Amino acid sequence: MSRASAQQRSDGLDTVFLALADPTRRAVIGRLGRGPASVSELARPFDIGLPSFLKHIRCLEDSGMIRTTKSGRTRTCTIDSSGLAQAEHWLAEQRAIWEARTDRLEAFVLEEQAKEVTRRDNN
Amino acid sequence: MSRASAQQRSDGLDTVFLALADPTRRAVIGRLGRGPASVSELARPFDIGLPSFLKHIRCLEDSGMIRTTKSGRTRTCTIDSSGLAQAEHWLAEQRAIWEARTDRLEAFVLEEQAKEVTRRDNN
Repeated sequence: MSRASAQQRSDGLDTVFLALADPTRRAVIGRLGRGPASVSELARPFDIGLPSFLKHIRCLEDSGMIRTTKSGRTRTCTIDSSGLAQAEHWLAEQRAIWEARTDRLEAFVLEEQAKEVTRRDNN
Repeated sequence: MSRASAQQRSDGLDTVFLALADPTRRAVIGRLGRGPASVSELARPFDIGLPSFLKHIRCLEDSGMIRTTKSGRTRTCTIDSSGLAQAEHWLAEQRAIWEARTDRLEAFVLEEQAKEVTRRDNN
């Protein structure tokens, strides 16, 4: 990966994880997973003003996790799974790193145990 | 899930995702996946002062993603996979929701196509 694209990817992860660090925005993602919805429909369950709610929508849109389209006076939101896929990909990479390490540790312990058994058998 | 434990889980996700929304903290997680390290060892690749770096460490510790232990003047950090597991679990739940929806949409389209073929065959 070039330095520029690594930087771009890192900036993308910053905005995706930041967008996910809020219960209202996570609830919106959860709702949109069930299908597209208008902003007013999405806002209904929340006890916050529309301007504050629109900030959450903008944050999700900036992170690439949702797309919005306007038709007349209605703005409809749709989930864009590529943002969440970025987050999943990063987490899976981390898991692969530490699982590889755990496997190496386990192999080392088993090897040491086998050596110990051989030592005992030889005595 | 009770309301209190749902709230606890949501607060946990807030701090986990917030902790992940920073390139330095993600790099620390990446490094610790390879094995425990002291704070000074972790700080070495970064061009930031120790007080700022310690804030990142505290943020990761508060989120439950790392544990630290002090021995003499050295503070050693270890990864705690349960924090990352929380994030992975939430993302997997979202994927399950929208994949179920995509499956339903696909089933609907196939059903409509089958009806169309039957209609044409009957004519």
